[in-house]
Amino acid sequence: MIADILYHEVEKKGPICVGLDTDVSYIPKNFMEKFNTIEESIFRFNQKIIDATSDIAACFKVQIAYYEACGLNGLMAYKKTLEYLRSLKLITIADIKRGDIAKTAEMYAKAHFEGDFESDYITVNPYMGLDSLTPYLKYVKENQKGLFALIRTSNPGAEDIQYIEDRKGIRVYQHVGEKLQKLGLDFMGSCGYSSIGGVVGCTHIEEGLDLRKKLNHTFFLIPGYGAQGGGAKEAAVYLRNGNGGVVNSSRAVLLAYKKVEGGENEFDICARNEVIKMREEIQNELSI
Amino acid sequence: MIADILYHEVEKKGPICVGLDTDVSYIPKNFMEKFNTIEESIFRFNQKIIDATSDIAACFKVQIAYYEACGLNGLMAYKKTLEYLRSLKLITIADIKRGDIAKTAEMYAKAHFEGDFESDYITVNPYMGLDSLTPYLKYVKENQKGLFALIRTSNPGAEDIQYIEDRKGIRVYQHVGEKLQKLGLDFMGSCGYSSIGGVVGCTHIEEGLDLRKKLNHTFFLIPGYGAQGGGAKEAAVYLRNGNGGVVNSSRAVLLAYKKVEGGENEFDICARNEVIKMREEIQNELSI
Repeated sequence: MIADILYHEVEKKGPICVGLDTDVSYIPKNFMEKFNTIEESIFRFNQKIIDATSDIAACFKVQIAYYEACGLNGLMAYKKTLEYLRSLKLITIADIKRGDIAKTAEMYAKAHFEGDFESDYITVNPYMGLDSLTPYLKYVKENQKGLFALIRTSNPGAEDIQYIEDRKGIRVYQHVGEKLQKLGLDFMGSCGYSSIGGVVGCTHIEEGLDLRKKLNHTFFLIPGYGAQGGGAKEAAVYLRNGNGGVVNSSRAVLLAYKKVEGGENEFDICARNEVIKMREEIQNELSI
Repeated sequence: MIADILYHEVEKKGPICVGLDTDVSYIPKNFMEKFNTIEESIFRFNQKIIDATSDIAACFKVQIAYYEACGLNGLMAYKKTLEYLRSLKLITIADIKRGDIAKTAEMYAKAHFEGDFESDYITVNPYMGLDSLTPYLKYVKENQKGLFALIRTSNPGAEDIQYIEDRKGIRVYQHVGEKLQKLGLDFMGSCGYSSIGGVVGCTHIEEGLDLRKKLNHTFFLIPGYGAQGGGAKEAAVYLRNGNGGVVNSSRAVLLAYKKVEGGENEFDICARNEVIKMREEIQNELSI
């Protein structure tokens, strides 16, 4: 089960996920100019970030939108980035948030769990219902793959749909969480967590505490740290003994060099320092 | 406004959308063998379908999952298909069902409203809330682009989330529909419909009648015809004077040749006949 592998990575390295949301504008100009193609520049930038953080990040999340925005060249860089991560046996999360009917979901599974864009985990959107997840499950069972499904996201507009309350006062995101945890029970690792995980924003402490308590077998992917306004306190509530979740930071890591004079020449070292700082901030909250 | 262009295409050609969900296995073997690469085979197959139906289909929907499943080669075919459709001034709907936070949605907008994968409409998933749609709106306003957001889908599991009822008995999908229609009022065409449309499954007549009545300015994309079990009666309820929506068929059109002896040698003619048959079936229901 992929959940066990991820759990052990967190035990070894801490609960940090580095997000490779690589906007071309993030790449320092003098580094960019070393390469002939956009594809090569993006990939080489990612490679430097990966090399500088692979011993302190439990996993890497690649947000496909940034690569799609550069068209076919961007997707070549996406493919090469995933291949490089896999060659180092690092855990990859493809942040693709797909969600579609059975036959289409089969195609997405084929696209992102094998072939050019193979990844260990993918993120999925549950709006179309649980049968939209079914085609992925055989990969979870047979090929050490995993899912992170959206539960409660960290953007301001999340409340539009996710906060709708039923007659008993239970919110849509709470229903989604419960359904996912139930589905996940068939895909439990020996670590106590399922390979069907959930995405939860680190912006509300009380919600986080409640979700952690109720979804006791759900491993969390926690975005929203740093650039999206969430802090160590908000993220830490989702962890149990420092595990059971990974906190993602993308922009704050990739752009850490902008806060340092001359940082563009050592953007990888700046990224590493940012991950170490973030890991410390979260660990300090855990010990409180 | 793109809604006006689509409206006029429906007036001229009827309310049919041809879905190019081109699974490689759908392509007749003898046709496949004419070309050296998968990319070329997929594109040439699509081209034949487009040429055979462009005068009787209001628009074409390209489901990206089928192309992603073939990796970079598949996405090259996806790009070429969209380029071909645009060169003929045919309306394209990229069925990508993306949904993500603002900065990521900006990247998706860049990816699918300009550049390699440019399309007229994209489908989006509203689970993350209305602010996840904001980055697309400037393209709707300034670049003749449009959205179809998921409201009520046609798969059996759709009920898991979309049917959750609030205290007043209003379902999640009804909330979504109302919020979308409200958002769409800023992007109205002179035809009476907005460029912010909605995706609704053609499987429940009563739901369809209710949605058509309440979402009076929403143009509908109606999948589920044929292969997914929906029929002409269920689809027709979403139309008003034969307009205000397009009914999509993918597999039934692409695989129409399988129902004809020797059909693989004239899969394009079979596809055309299927579209004509479908258009007649729906028009017959409209006149009842």
